[in-house]
Parts: sequence; C-alpha cells; structure tokens
Amino acid sequence: MLVNGQNADAISIEDRGLLYGDGIFETILCEQGKPILFEQHVGRLHKGCERLLLATQDVDTLHSEVMQVAQGDDCVIKIMVTRGVRARGYRFDTHDRAYTRIVYRSPVPKIPENYYRQGISLALSDYRLPKNETLAGIKHLNRLDQVLACQGWEAEIAEKVMLDHEGLVVEGTMSNIFIETEGVLITPTLNLGGIEGVMRDWLINHAPQLSIDCQQQDFDLVTLEKADAIFMCNSVVGIWPVVRFQDYTYTVSDNVRQLMRLVNNKLSALYKA
Amino acid sequence: MLVNGQNADAISIEDRGLLYGDGIFETILCEQGKPILFEQHVGRLHKGCERLLLATQDVDTLHSEVMQVAQGDDCVIKIMVTRGVRARGYRFDTHDRAYTRIVYRSPVPKIPENYYRQGISLALSDYRLPKNETLAGIKHLNRLDQVLACQGWEAEIAEKVMLDHEGLVVEGTMSNIFIETEGVLITPTLNLGGIEGVMRDWLINHAPQLSIDCQQQDFDLVTLEKADAIFMCNSVVGIWPVVRFQDYTYTVSDNVRQLMRLVNNKLSALYKA
Repeated sequence: MLVNGQNADAISIEDRGLLYGDGIFETILCEQGKPILFEQHVGRLHKGCERLLLATQDVDTLHSEVMQVAQGDDCVIKIMVTRGVRARGYRFDTHDRAYTRIVYRSPVPKIPENYYRQGISLALSDYRLPKNETLAGIKHLNRLDQVLACQGWEAEIAEKVMLDHEGLVVEGTMSNIFIETEGVLITPTLNLGGIEGVMRDWLINHAPQLSIDCQQQDFDLVTLEKADAIFMCNSVVGIWPVVRFQDYTYTVSDNVRQLMRLVNNKLSALYKA
Repeated sequence: MLVNGQNADAISIEDRGLLYGDGIFETILCEQGKPILFEQHVGRLHKGCERLLLATQDVDTLHSEVMQVAQGDDCVIKIMVTRGVRARGYRFDTHDRAYTRIVYRSPVPKIPENYYRQGISLALSDYRLPKNETLAGIKHLNRLDQVLACQGWEAEIAEKVMLDHEGLVVEGTMSNIFIETEGVLITPTLNLGGIEGVMRDWLINHAPQLSIDCQQQDFDLVTLEKADAIFMCNSVVGIWPVVRFQDYTYTVSDNVRQLMRLVNNKLSALYKA
C-alpha cells in the first residue's frame, strides 16, 4: 500500500476523500504483475482529475507505483486520488495543489465459473440513478448510489441493472450493460449518469474489427426485456452473458460469444493486440 | 481526535467512508465545551444511520466522546460514522455491524461581523442539485455536489444558492434558505434533495413562539428574486440575512431581526430554552 509514494495503510481523517468523497479511483486487473489496460485506466483517471479540477497525476509515477504494488500473484490494484487535506469547508483554492494518491492491492475476486459458462441472472434495482451531467462518466468517490442499489441482494443474482428517473437503462452496480437487437450491440450513452467503463470503451472500439456493429444509444426497460441478448462487463471480470432477467430468458448470441472469446480468455495477451 | 473511542488521526485506506463516501456526518458548534443542539444533531445522525442501514450509535457514547474532544475553547466538533472496513465491493452484509466512528475538533470559523450586521451577498450556483429522494435530507458523505457548486467562488460572495433540475430552489452550499413573502417565512421542502439542517428544523419549530408563520414549500427562482426578505442559516454560523442576490437588493425584515436576536446572540443560553 502506498500513500503519495510512501508505505502506509492509513490516511488523515481530515482528507477530503473521506470528508466529501472528493476524489476519483480506478480498479485495475493485474496479471503476473502487469496492469491490464493501464493506459485506458490512466486516461479515465485524468479525465476525472480534469472534471473535478484535481491535480493531474504523472503517468510514469502512477505506472511505477502500480508495478511496485502489483508484484507477485495476480491482483486487483486500486488507485485513488483525492483533493487531500485542505482548509475546512467545501470550497477549495485551485492554486493549492494538495492531493493524496493511494495505490493498494486486493486479491482477484473469485467469480463462479458458471457466470461465464452458463451466464448470469440479472435483477432490476429499485434504486434510480440521479441525473448528473457534471459527474456522468467519471469514476468518482461518491458511490452511495451503488451502495444503496446493492441493498437486499439475493444470492442467486450476479448483478443488478439500474435505471434513471426517466426509466432509461444506465448500467449495472459494478458493470456496464450491452444489449443485442437484430444483430446490433447497443450500450447506453451515459451522458447523464453512470461510469464510462474501460472495458465498455474497449469493446466499442474493438467490435468493428469483428464486424460487429456497436452503438451508443439510450433505451428503456421494455427494450432491455425484448433484447435478443444481454451482457454485462467490466475490466476486472470481463464479460458476463445474461441468461435471465426478471421473468425473461436469453441465449448467448454468436456476437457475444465472439467478444467473450476475445476478452475472457488470456486477457493480457489479447489486450496487447 | 477519536476513532472508535481511541486517540487517532487516521483511518484505514480501505474504510468504506473513503472508498464510497459510505457514511454520515454532523458538525456541531461547541461553546465552552458544551455541544449546542446536541440532541437534534444526534437525531439527524440516527436518521441517517437508519436510511443507510448503518449501525446505530449509542447516544451516551457519542455524548461522552464529544464532551471529551470539545474540552477547552469554543470549537466545532465533527462526527463521522462510516460503514468501516468490510469485504471488497459495494455490497454489504447487514449482519456485519462494522463501523468507524470519528470525533474531532476544528476552530470555530471566523465569520466577518458584517455578515450579521449588514447582511450578505448571495450568488446563484450554476450547478444543479440532482433529484434523489433516498438521500434527501440526510447529511451523508457524498458531497461532490457541494464541492462542485463551490467552484469559482468570488471573494465578495458569502454563500451560493442551488437549484434542482426543475429550477426549484433547494439550499445553499452549506446552509438552508428561508424567504419571507407577505409576512410568511417559506423554506424548501427538501423532499428530493438537500440537507435538513438542524438550525432549519429549530427555526421551523420555534417561529410560532414568535407568532411568525413558517411553512415548508418549494419555490422557484422568480419567487426567490421577488421575496421581501431572504436569510441563510446553519447550526454553526446561525442566521445570515441576505441583502443582495444577483441584481436585487433586500432589507432585513422585522421577522428576520427577531429570529436573528434569538439565534445569533448567546446561542447556548437560548438553545436550552
């Protein structure tokens, strides 16, 4: 665990990351010490820094700290950048460049193999995501929406999908969603909420190489229910095909199988391609 | 500074208070070691614990920790309660009662005397507060809305007022708002956003004793502009009358003067009444 480059496992109780959730984070899968999709994660991190007017982080420093902490077994590295310890109150002086940069590791989560082989059950969260165009897309530290959406989780459910107040589909609690309708992949725009997942971006960019048409477009619950196929994805777990959503069942389409082969097998080798 | 009753000035970087802003806080003015409106603050804290399914905190423990940390000069005590360190991910086991309780002190903020004597300039924040009925009212640790609303603050401004996406007035960045129209005080309902301030509640409850009619009702920007009087309040600074908002000027009404006498002079003596 590193805090501003020093070995540490704690931060000040006056850090704005704790006081206000005033910061951003990334969660990066590391295979045999190597961070997967590192540049993409750093790209989103910098986008978050810009949006929140946080001090931009030096890429080489980030890389060397991640490499240092990721040494050894496969792991998940979390990076957090907060606005650090400042004068009391919400206001902040943009000339004050104080920040706290945290890098630490966790074990790779143990995912049941049948999530990939058979597919998952998806549930609908009762919790509606608020509209917030300023915070949309970035991975900031205000995550009570996701925490609250995870209340009352049933064991047979792998993930929940969240709608906004207009009833449009936004994302899963910890993943992005794609549907397939008449051969076309569609994923929500995230213009007004949700996190622009690194895996989501990667799939949007790489689908054309497999001759798969992939579009960003908002859709409602009925469109989701009537989709030909559904999958959830993020950069740590890869792609989970959905075989059940509420009372509906789905098969895993050829397109989804193609993308799964690309993403879920030997992530590191393929990501280098 | 106390963390779960022990002297400490840091918390784990894996605390959910930092990871997700998964917790609540209170900010309590203490005069000569005595917390002002303590029961009201604890009441709101417990309401927040219930709403977020956080472990309820024992009132006697809270009181003794606040008294311990508040000893000496006047100060502001901040209490934070987070969901502590748990297994990785947004999901939480409601049977796991882990929490982190933090109590620490800061100096009383130095407020220019003319904020009370002459009144303040209020500005309009560009940042719109998202609608969120689940989080409305409670003082949780997801405060990026307030941080972002404070961007680009001009020195002559004492506070900014925030609207929601429908254009209704909600609150200040760190205070609640009241307007007076035809002798009646009106403050937003906060049903869909904002923090139910302890001072706001106290004023709603005590206005009738001064024969002041006070109502909770949502209103728009035009109603705010055309108000006969405006004031902002919170439990640390008391009441700030507004004398300027955008191009409009306001006088301090008799009702507002009465309330200011009640609240801003000898807070502790009056709060005991």
